[in-house]
Amino acid sequence: MAAATSSQLDVRHAAIRRALEALGLDALIVTAPANIRYLTNHAGSAGTLVAAARAMHLLLDFRYQESARLLQASPFACPALKVWPVTASYDEALLECLAATGVTTVGFEAGHLTVARHEWLVRTAAARSVAVTLRPTERVVEQARVVKDDGEVTTLREAARRLTPVARAAFEMVRPGTTERAVAARVEAALREAGFERPAFDTIVASGPNAALPHYRAGDRVLERGDVVVLDFGGVLDGYCSDLTRTVAVAPPSAEAYRVHQAVREAQQAAIDAVRPGIATTDVDRAARRVLEAHGLGEAFGHGTGHGLGLDVHEEPRVTRPRADVAPVPLEPGMVFTIEPGAYLPGWGGVRIEDDVLVTARGCEVLTSVPYALIPD
Amino acid sequence: MAAATSSQLDVRHAAIRRALEALGLDALIVTAPANIRYLTNHAGSAGTLVAAARAMHLLLDFRYQESARLLQASPFACPALKVWPVTASYDEALLECLAATGVTTVGFEAGHLTVARHEWLVRTAAARSVAVTLRPTERVVEQARVVKDDGEVTTLREAARRLTPVARAAFEMVRPGTTERAVAARVEAALREAGFERPAFDTIVASGPNAALPHYRAGDRVLERGDVVVLDFGGVLDGYCSDLTRTVAVAPPSAEAYRVHQAVREAQQAAIDAVRPGIATTDVDRAARRVLEAHGLGEAFGHGTGHGLGLDVHEEPRVTRPRADVAPVPLEPGMVFTIEPGAYLPGWGGVRIEDDVLVTARGCEVLTSVPYALIPD
Repeated sequence: MAAATSSQLDVRHAAIRRALEALGLDALIVTAPANIRYLTNHAGSAGTLVAAARAMHLLLDFRYQESARLLQASPFACPALKVWPVTASYDEALLECLAATGVTTVGFEAGHLTVARHEWLVRTAAARSVAVTLRPTERVVEQARVVKDDGEVTTLREAARRLTPVARAAFEMVRPGTTERAVAARVEAALREAGFERPAFDTIVASGPNAALPHYRAGDRVLERGDVVVLDFGGVLDGYCSDLTRTVAVAPPSAEAYRVHQAVREAQQAAIDAVRPGIATTDVDRAARRVLEAHGLGEAFGHGTGHGLGLDVHEEPRVTRPRADVAPVPLEPGMVFTIEPGAYLPGWGGVRIEDDVLVTARGCEVLTSVPYALIPD
Repeated sequence: MAAATSSQLDVRHAAIRRALEALGLDALIVTAPANIRYLTNHAGSAGTLVAAARAMHLLLDFRYQESARLLQASPFACPALKVWPVTASYDEALLECLAATGVTTVGFEAGHLTVARHEWLVRTAAARSVAVTLRPTERVVEQARVVKDDGEVTTLREAARRLTPVARAAFEMVRPGTTERAVAARVEAALREAGFERPAFDTIVASGPNAALPHYRAGDRVLERGDVVVLDFGGVLDGYCSDLTRTVAVAPPSAEAYRVHQAVREAQQAAIDAVRPGIATTDVDRAARRVLEAHGLGEAFGHGTGHGLGLDVHEEPRVTRPRADVAPVPLEPGMVFTIEPGAYLPGWGGVRIEDDVLVTARGCEVLTSVPYALIPD
């Protein structure tokens, strides 16, 4: 497993400690699995972290004790890690840890902790006279994660690169008589063959009218001549996600298929061309949207243009229209996200084209490398 | 897609409405995706439901409008469904829906809603003079889901049955020179061949010393003669999860491998034999634990004996030791869960054996059907 080195973790810890200091917090309770992995290399599906000034207190149940021990004996050991075994519940262990370490003003991740866990912690701390005040925080670790370090960029670049043979395998399956599900199975086998540990999300193979459903997955529909097929898939490599969409046709495509495909491709290239440091995420979205509007397809493009990629397959930055709940973000070198406009016409079908891009010092590096043609060579 | 019929949904709605009445609530905000699917058949990754006395208000963004329309035109239409399009954020749309429907005392799922969403809703409702009081609820829909209806049992039985050929394919791959990852790839291809829509969780192939890590996944380790290999996999069929573990050896197994395997198998059978209506989940756990303790492997069995299976791969009931945070549940006919004791010996390896069981009127039906031998035929 390639993971962050101890010195990379040191840099991440320093960033979190600066954030805690600015917020007047003694420690941060981290409950989102990807945030825990980012700060400790612990990749389990359970775990709670208390990130404090002097130590990273990682609470782990029986299932993860041995893997944590092995990790700490490797070059990917987490600096200043203290493992707390969880014997009853995670929240019992958390209260014990908070009491034992003597932290008093402690942040929690309001975007991840549930109301039930929060209420239990507050109520039980009071009942047991644990002198701790819990304060909501937003995006403390996410803000650090949005700009990737060199190791992360290397992994994301490699993950994107490995989608090329997977796409080729998918294209070969797109022919009359194949089911969507068979194409999806081939894609997932090819992801494994390419060395991915698992698919980053449920593979989408949406053919004919199904392609009008942006989040359709794959079903029993049999591909027919003239079908337009949206193929959307990605893999996880060393924890980091890749994500690609191509839309191809079972020959012969209709004139409408060529028209919509061309418009979406133009929109996608316009958004890619807009990417550079300092430009806002909403401007990247605008670049794609303007092209589709010019083609009379503005209404057919109902979702955002892209999303960040990293330890989560959907993370910051969100590349969307101006929205009340998503602040536009100025792009910085090291950000990695998808560019994936689409056009969906109920009854007819749809087209989506997606690449993964890295913001560089001068502009943009497209990490994925797969031909765009509606009829692949 | 096989989903709940409209009349099955009617029964589920009636159960939720009775629960709301008992709690003095006008409506329930449902945010857990599996709970939304259970009540509406909507299977998307986004969506918010307001379950009220007269209607099921389903808030959906652009991506799901067309699939909801198609679902409502099918035999699986959700009764009394009203779809609300989400144009800005889900929580904006939720407040509009609450204001428009005039409900005033509204429950939310405290175990799923985050502190951040809750605070935004409370603050914004006050600022906009929406006269709604939000009340935390726990397990309203989960309590209905724990006893499966006939349609769910049929699907879960079929999902478990389809693991037999997958296990056979996995066993054939267990030989010297194969990597764990190659075995996992074969398992996942076989899951697709068996008609599953996707794996229910990351496939585990843990060989040799890796088998001592209960939640190891699959890596580059090459299988060797004498290895003990834990194979843990499952598939999702029409939304419902199956889950199976077998532990097999690359010949020739050591005496210790036979000893530990035999002990775990005895423990597993003891737990299966304990299953019948009225017995507590903690007693099922106790039956397995007692056998392992008698074999001197009590300390080596650090996790619970099982978990419920349904729309989630880990749901109620939890089959565990008595714990402060998990109430023992008396078994009822229609409950479906796993029985999966294990023994993990750091440095040596581990053994886990898992089947899926249904509580019947008189005892227990084992849904999975795969031989247990350490050296498969």
